[in-house]
Amino acid sequence: MTVKPLAGITVFENDSFVAGPSSTLALSQLGAEVVKIDPIKGGPDIDRWPITDEGRSIYWGTLNRNKRSVAIDLRSEEGQELAQALITSPGENAGVFVDNNVGRPFLSDEVLRARRADLVHVKVQGSADGGPGVDYTVNAEVGIPLITGEVGSPGPGNHALPAWDLVCGQAAVTAVVTGLFRRATTGEGIYEEIALKDIALAGVANLGWYTETLQPAGERAKHGNHIFGSFGSDFRTADGRYVMITAITRRQWGNLVKVTGMTDVVTALEASLSTDFSEETDRYTYRDLLESLFRPWFASRTAERITTDLEGSGVLWAPYASMGEVAQSVLDSDGSGVVRSIESEALGTMLVAANPIRMDGEYLFDERPTTFGSDTHAVLSERLGLESAELGRLVDAGVIAS
Amino acid sequence: MTVKPLAGITVFENDSFVAGPSSTLALSQLGAEVVKIDPIKGGPDIDRWPITDEGRSIYWGTLNRNKRSVAIDLRSEEGQELAQALITSPGENAGVFVDNNVGRPFLSDEVLRARRADLVHVKVQGSADGGPGVDYTVNAEVGIPLITGEVGSPGPGNHALPAWDLVCGQAAVTAVVTGLFRRATTGEGIYEEIALKDIALAGVANLGWYTETLQPAGERAKHGNHIFGSFGSDFRTADGRYVMITAITRRQWGNLVKVTGMTDVVTALEASLSTDFSEETDRYTYRDLLESLFRPWFASRTAERITTDLEGSGVLWAPYASMGEVAQSVLDSDGSGVVRSIESEALGTMLVAANPIRMDGEYLFDERPTTFGSDTHAVLSERLGLESAELGRLVDAGVIAS
Repeated sequence: MTVKPLAGITVFENDSFVAGPSSTLALSQLGAEVVKIDPIKGGPDIDRWPITDEGRSIYWGTLNRNKRSVAIDLRSEEGQELAQALITSPGENAGVFVDNNVGRPFLSDEVLRARRADLVHVKVQGSADGGPGVDYTVNAEVGIPLITGEVGSPGPGNHALPAWDLVCGQAAVTAVVTGLFRRATTGEGIYEEIALKDIALAGVANLGWYTETLQPAGERAKHGNHIFGSFGSDFRTADGRYVMITAITRRQWGNLVKVTGMTDVVTALEASLSTDFSEETDRYTYRDLLESLFRPWFASRTAERITTDLEGSGVLWAPYASMGEVAQSVLDSDGSGVVRSIESEALGTMLVAANPIRMDGEYLFDERPTTFGSDTHAVLSERLGLESAELGRLVDAGVIAS
Repeated sequence: MTVKPLAGITVFENDSFVAGPSSTLALSQLGAEVVKIDPIKGGPDIDRWPITDEGRSIYWGTLNRNKRSVAIDLRSEEGQELAQALITSPGENAGVFVDNNVGRPFLSDEVLRARRADLVHVKVQGSADGGPGVDYTVNAEVGIPLITGEVGSPGPGNHALPAWDLVCGQAAVTAVVTGLFRRATTGEGIYEEIALKDIALAGVANLGWYTETLQPAGERAKHGNHIFGSFGSDFRTADGRYVMITAITRRQWGNLVKVTGMTDVVTALEASLSTDFSEETDRYTYRDLLESLFRPWFASRTAERITTDLEGSGVLWAPYASMGEVAQSVLDSDGSGVVRSIESEALGTMLVAANPIRMDGEYLFDERPTTFGSDTHAVLSERLGLESAELGRLVDAGVIAS
């Protein structure tokens, strides 16, 4: 039996880019009806890369699937009134709003709450002081890029993944669901704000990395592809591929030494260096030596041979894959994994993921493309009771999408 | 008024490393009482780096603060029974369990659910097939490292931040809270599993990056510190510091051109190249040219001068900071931000973050260090009614911490 914990809930959103839209995407996968309210020509991310050859945004289409799309002229007074009316429309399972607005006072919490006191309103911001911020800027500010990249290389190494956006999106899900949980038990609404920069600061702080700098050793240096505080590194194979090998626990280390036939060498090294590589700290201290020790073993084997040799060895490792290889493996799969293909008129074959939370053993996979603006009339009719004559007038006046 | 949406809820955990412990840390900040059940000598992360000069784990202490710590010999039958009894102990606000176990059948969902049918049980895994996986290996498998690093550089670039662990932790929070929400409305328990590899696959898929590879352009190349699909890059300053400058929207671009005095040059370039840099795609196409164009402006100014010049300009930018600089700014602050200092007997000054979700305008900051094993007797007494004679016997038998 498929369990959708948020079935029956309606969430409105008016936002763009990754954090907000990824939160409502997750809410839709958990069973909520999500109604996305956008400016009539689309938000600032409507054409964002990656795009198809025809110029359609794969980015927008992927982050905003499974949603109903309402397009309104938010500069017109009538459009603003419609947006407010939708967001605060009645129903005990409605009254939930996610936004990332800075310059839309008509969607401020104060204005909306005056119309619906029990609103669960989650606002995603750049900085807690109301200033702007995106993944690229907050990552720079919290310290990660200066410890990312090759050992000894100067300057910052930005991450390719908008990691903080994804964490922020998940935190926004938490904000919505805790808000709903609390409203279910107390009847009270809540206003919850989340700043992307706070997400990043808290993420780093919770790993202990700011506290670490207060120790005598001070700032952490760049570690390249080494794991900090333990042993793990990438290795190149005979056929020019790469594998990530880790030995974090004592058992993983023992397995790695055994399968590579290094028992005698490691014993000799331990004796002569007065170390014990079964201790994580010693593996970390001698990480360059250990990497050099194992390098020829990997360099003399193809990726396929390494896979065979490590099978059942108890070594924790993985091959590096390219995005295209992952995509191909999804297309070749039986369609039971977390990522599957769906067809979209605008984007062709889309590779989209279920919510990774498996409920009682099942992925909830019910993924459908969204067409910008296509639910405008249906939503205004269902939620606000507008009839076709009125909808026609609003289209003619340029207030809503046709 | 401080609002703690999960006040009254008790969550048990038996896990290690980042994902599980960061989820329960967040739950504790949202008001839950978290009872961490560990093996009597600690889990595999008890000594994990970063460590203090005295060898205490800053990592463990930071991720596990705000929790009650119970230490039990989980290899003994009596210890296993105690753990089961705690996790399934009665109370409508208890019966919540987060774990990442592979080899502890006595804590399987089947066994626990037979004792408490309405359990909300969230299990964090490596791979959905039950196989192992850590941030370093799943990141390799989903394709991010091969697009991370300097343009044209060979091989993978691992991220320093365990991004997937953090996203997974937040997803585990969602799993717990949606489970609670559903139990509150239906009375039913649920078993929710989340694989770290699925988190990573879904994270990439939801950005549209796998779909992107199906387009004629194919695999994305490494972009160094450039923003994909728009304009943004790092710039070195006259005093050897770095700043991240972005121009994602049309307005940000216009502001950058204006403040750097490049209006005429940009107009000339646009005319001669038949481009329009107010279009994001054109800025992206000519990103190297544009970077070169702005580089001297930044290289001839100190970071301080750049800060002054960009103030109020509407350019979206940030200075790169080191972890130590962030730490110092927290120590120098008035203590009202998301990261603040607390004192711990074991770790000295800790820099810890409130949950980034501000509830009705307030950070919920109530952070306290946890001492390993120190709540064993109190929790067993409160939850299972054990009296001191019995606790003494269990200590003598080596079943629980003293």
